[in-house]
Amino acid sequence: MGRHISPCENMAGEGCGLKRVLDLIGGKWKILILCVIYAEGTVRYGELRRRIYGITNTMLAHSLREMERDGLVERHQFDEMPVRVEYSLTASAGSMIPILLELKRWGEEHMKP
Amino acid sequence: MGRHISPCENMAGEGCGLKRVLDLIGGKWKILILCVIYAEGTVRYGELRRRIYGITNTMLAHSLREMERDGLVERHQFDEMPVRVEYSLTASAGSMIPILLELKRWGEEHMKP
Repeated sequence: MGRHISPCENMAGEGCGLKRVLDLIGGKWKILILCVIYAEGTVRYGELRRRIYGITNTMLAHSLREMERDGLVERHQFDEMPVRVEYSLTASAGSMIPILLELKRWGEEHMKP
Repeated sequence: MGRHISPCENMAGEGCGLKRVLDLIGGKWKILILCVIYAEGTVRYGELRRRIYGITNTMLAHSLREMERDGLVERHQFDEMPVRVEYSLTASAGSMIPILLELKRWGEEHMKP
């Protein structure tokens, strides 16, 4: 394979868009969380937990807090008894979904289960 | 946002293509390693290390071993003195690159450095 234009001059440095995305959604859970919220539109915490096979309470709660802080997820609290909390995607996070679905298709084509 | 077709029936379960990809390239380094090797065509270990800002020797060596085992990276050893080792992408890994570049563009559009 020949030499290609480098995706970044300073790969993984401050200026790299890919590094910024990976800092935001790196790790195994956040992308899956985005996809479940996308699929549901809005989703309650318990339903999220049920849908993501293998995630712990701690990891889900921690990931959601970071994603809310980073502008990927909106948290809606309804003052009912018991309190109801729902999550939805921001417009910004929604625009990442088609790329994640391409990655999913790649996984299905190139890897055996 | 309304309800969408779910990307997976069993999100993050065994059958999910996205989960399989994330198991393969999850974490912050592997995607960056793929991009540097792609940019260079073939690249020596020391050059990889220099190009990926902030990676440790341990993380780079460990990641490369796993990526070779998983069929993403090819390792070529030349019996010179000193021994020369170069890495290149497999065809399968190469086909993931356009998707990663889209993710990079998303990062540049949606996130401030």
